[in-house]
Amino acid sequence: MLKGLTLAGLGAVESEERFIELAGEGGFQAVDIDARGLIERLGTEGAAAKLESHGVVIGAIGLPVEWRAGEDEFLAGLPGLTEAAAAARALGCTRCCTYILPSTDAKPAHFMAVATRRLRICAQILGAYGIRLGLEFVGPHHLRTAWKYPFIWTMEETLDWVEAIGEPNVGLLLDAYHWHTNGLSVDDIERLQPQQIVHVHINDAPDLPVEAVLDNGRLYPGEGVIDLEGFLRGLQRIGYDGIVSQEVLTPAMPEDTPEQLIRRSKAGFDRVFSAAGIGAGGR
Amino acid sequence: MLKGLTLAGLGAVESEERFIELAGEGGFQAVDIDARGLIERLGTEGAAAKLESHGVVIGAIGLPVEWRAGEDEFLAGLPGLTEAAAAARALGCTRCCTYILPSTDAKPAHFMAVATRRLRICAQILGAYGIRLGLEFVGPHHLRTAWKYPFIWTMEETLDWVEAIGEPNVGLLLDAYHWHTNGLSVDDIERLQPQQIVHVHINDAPDLPVEAVLDNGRLYPGEGVIDLEGFLRGLQRIGYDGIVSQEVLTPAMPEDTPEQLIRRSKAGFDRVFSAAGIGAGGR
Amino acid sequence: MLKGLTLAGLGAVESEERFIELAGEGGFQAVDIDARGLIERLGTEGAAAKLESHGVVIGAIGLPVEWRAGEDEFLAGLPGLTEAAAAARALGCTRCCTYILPSTDAKPAHFMAVATRRLRICAQILGAYGIRLGLEFVGPHHLRTAWKYPFIWTMEETLDWVEAIGEPNVGLLLDAYHWHTNGLSVDDIERLQPQQIVHVHINDAPDLPVEAVLDNGRLYPGEGVIDLEGFLRGLQRIGYDGIVSQEVLTPAMPEDTPEQLIRRSKAGFDRVFSAAGIGAGGR
Amino acid sequence: MLKGLTLAGLGAVESEERFIELAGEGGFQAVDIDARGLIERLGTEGAAAKLESHGVVIGAIGLPVEWRAGEDEFLAGLPGLTEAAAAARALGCTRCCTYILPSTDAKPAHFMAVATRRLRICAQILGAYGIRLGLEFVGPHHLRTAWKYPFIWTMEETLDWVEAIGEPNVGLLLDAYHWHTNGLSVDDIERLQPQQIVHVHINDAPDLPVEAVLDNGRLYPGEGVIDLEGFLRGLQRIGYDGIVSQEVLTPAMPEDTPEQLIRRSKAGFDRVFSAAGIGAGGR
Repeated sequence: MLKGLTLAGLGAVESEERFIELAGEGGFQAVDIDARGLIERLGTEGAAAKLESHGVVIGAIGLPVEWRAGEDEFLAGLPGLTEAAAAARALGCTRCCTYILPSTDAKPAHFMAVATRRLRICAQILGAYGIRLGLEFVGPHHLRTAWKYPFIWTMEETLDWVEAIGEPNVGLLLDAYHWHTNGLSVDDIERLQPQQIVHVHINDAPDLPVEAVLDNGRLYPGEGVIDLEGFLRGLQRIGYDGIVSQEVLTPAMPEDTPEQLIRRSKAGFDRVFSAAGIGAGGR
Repeated sequence: MLKGLTLAGLGAVESEERFIELAGEGGFQAVDIDARGLIERLGTEGAAAKLESHGVVIGAIGLPVEWRAGEDEFLAGLPGLTEAAAAARALGCTRCCTYILPSTDAKPAHFMAVATRRLRICAQILGAYGIRLGLEFVGPHHLRTAWKYPFIWTMEETLDWVEAIGEPNVGLLLDAYHWHTNGLSVDDIERLQPQQIVHVHINDAPDLPVEAVLDNGRLYPGEGVIDLEGFLRGLQRIGYDGIVSQEVLTPAMPEDTPEQLIRRSKAGFDRVFSAAGIGAGGR
Repeated sequence: MLKGLTLAGLGAVESEERFIELAGEGGFQAVDIDARGLIERLGTEGAAAKLESHGVVIGAIGLPVEWRAGEDEFLAGLPGLTEAAAAARALGCTRCCTYILPSTDAKPAHFMAVATRRLRICAQILGAYGIRLGLEFVGPHHLRTAWKYPFIWTMEETLDWVEAIGEPNVGLLLDAYHWHTNGLSVDDIERLQPQQIVHVHINDAPDLPVEAVLDNGRLYPGEGVIDLEGFLRGLQRIGYDGIVSQEVLTPAMPEDTPEQLIRRSKAGFDRVFSAAGIGAGGR
Repeated sequence: MLKGLTLAGLGAVESEERFIELAGEGGFQAVDIDARGLIERLGTEGAAAKLESHGVVIGAIGLPVEWRAGEDEFLAGLPGLTEAAAAARALGCTRCCTYILPSTDAKPAHFMAVATRRLRICAQILGAYGIRLGLEFVGPHHLRTAWKYPFIWTMEETLDWVEAIGEPNVGLLLDAYHWHTNGLSVDDIERLQPQQIVHVHINDAPDLPVEAVLDNGRLYPGEGVIDLEGFLRGLQRIGYDGIVSQEVLTPAMPEDTPEQLIRRSKAGFDRVFSAAGIGAGGR
């Protein structure tokens, strides 16, 4: 497993180039950034060199397509997806992720049908470039009733959706926060095949009843009550050898400097990885 | 278009063999029956001879798979589906149909995901045998709230589901009753491609506000208020050359004899087909 | 059926804009051009206005992807395909075509496997935009041994390939020349469903043994020995209501002016369509 | 990895029930047998009890469908495939395998298209039951020209075919003999993802130039020149944790008793597994 970062939780990082530098300096091995933008600014060779010189790879790109709204907006995003996939491939990134809101104002069965078709098309384009699509189920209870109808929020439902989409390159983005708020156990992880997991997010939760945990109330790994030791050990036991990226969503941007926040993140990673008995960057 | 019958509306027909005889004698060209059962009783050659000697073909078979309940029940039906598809093919039948309840007690988005996968598998097996799968949307308003959550009931939603399933051999079963209770127009039919329609049901509705029409309150074609002339003309205009089968669901079995009911059906067909300017059995 | 033109056989037309004008003035209703290029030059509204003011639609675009060579070249074409599909959709064009060389220097089974995957991806991208992909089988006998191994060249083989690709929006480009050089009959057309045909090419062949007919030895419709009357009548009988575009490949560019060549083409179309009993532009 | 057996190389074993007993007594953990036949003879519970009492699982079933000949023969096999898949699932078996002849009398590109569709249908049916389909490429050089045209025989070609088939549950059956006769290296194994391998065959080859090795001239593991130590170590390094089944095809049935042959097989397994540093049955 590689230790990675997203920008969520790092405060005011001035650019993605600076993000790469900070991640490398802070002892991280992967960053979740926009591969296409990096190439637009630095060129393919320049982008690759920037990553390499700081010892980091791109963990995952975000899915740059509006698949939740109207058909025209969806189609308008596909040329950009193709470019994004080509850019990710050029930089060796093989993961692209999106999240699933647990409730919806749309008729949920119909929205599911439309979204199944749309995400299949996204997966097909990504698959042409050797990139996998990870779907992130979202667990916090308050979001399950934030819109009119329930959509889906459990791991099992999401795995069923992966099968409904039906492309070989689709799987889960497993986020420790959503694992926790769904009340899942280490056994639930150990029932997975490693290839069912495209990407992993790590973070922590306050000591509240699971029903009261807020989506943007996240803590740094090791600073809360999630059994991250079990979470990581489960991933290792099934042979997951991908990326574990920190994602800490908070109500307001942290006031500490990015340098301070990355040190704090690194300390958290070290604590939970070592508790799980996983060496630095080791498989 | 071929004029066809289902058993719904024919009263106490003693067997499917008798159904074939009655349909042929009554001037109909197609029957919706269980091809596999017919072959089991008569043999393939006997079944083919029975149909041919009465001048009828099999319009459609029903989907013999429980796709709405648990996974074990679903899987238990697949061997039978394979046999049913082989039987249908042996008798020249190329259509298999199922209906969609407009509401559900299950979480609708999850049920949609599961049902998408299951119906795809059914379509794949049927497709191997050259058989198409028709999905019937169900319009009556009382069924939209008969279970806890809305599922889907419109033609547009069903077409979106067809695309989510993603197999070339899936399309609509278009039933005049559901067209009527969805408030659809002839224009809505004319926007279809003929190959999007796998099968057609015909029947009529009482002169009630559309919201009050009950699913089992159906009348014989030409005895109610549905614009069947427009319905048939629309089908003909887009080049639909398949089967139009009567399906009359009633609260209790009709008391007339099957012979009387078939004559009544035939009179209704003749009236609405001739109003639509479509000759006997003509394309 | 709409009467259409490709540039093949029109001599030195100076631009696609001029092609549109000539087609409209010459009484044609469709042109096969590069929708994306037209939009790049005129803008979407300008391109649509140009077409409309000359009374023509775009029949089909060519597939702008190198699917026969290396994987990098293939992938490099996909962003352009997405743009081309968006452009075609913006101008109301729903067809994209490519041709199949009947022999190959590659190991043919492996090439077939690779090409199946690649054309599937193309079809998936096109399908997102509501565009169909037509595969043109190529009949002339000399091309069947022009490279080391046979590939495919018959209509049946191509239909089998369409099923191997497995996307609902893939079908045939049926070219009268390849129909002729394959020794096909009107019955072979009448066995098709109209939706299996994405696009049609028309042209004529010299009075030679079929084995001696050269791919670039084509004549204008009505000037040779192909049974175009039967060809068109078969298409009409099955309900094909798409485009029939002239494609006349010749060893050297014709010396007549485009205006003269379009008049000649129009005379040929009029002759064969009227022999087939099909009115001007009528379905 | 579990150590498994096929009947090939065991001489005159009187029944599959006896095969199960012999395998268990001989220290093997898996047998490749016909799950459906076993259930037909013993019932589902009886079959499961038989396997369990001898400490063996079913490694893989053979694909009981004729996908290489005519369409009618293909379709005739599908009901049996559905039954076989249900039987395999009932006994916990998740693998089904078939092999690919490296040359063919059919036009190879067309045969590839037809076989792609057929194997996709098989994979779809198997997939419904949670069973994967393994395709075995066949390396011996004499078979590459045994029929008129080359088909495919390399691992890369087979992986490309897996992608052309396009179902998530299709992968390789990797046989040490075909790995050897294709001149593949341990690196070639290490480039695979473990989920790309559905099943593994093990055996050995005589000390001949690779071009002269005959398909039915196989030796028991550890008695020939194949680098089985590297083969197994490569599999372990990528995390393959499935079954490794012996398959020894010989010109005539061996004269030793099954008991003797299983002891010899076990000795061979022990030698090569321990040379590779893999413990008994360990992952």
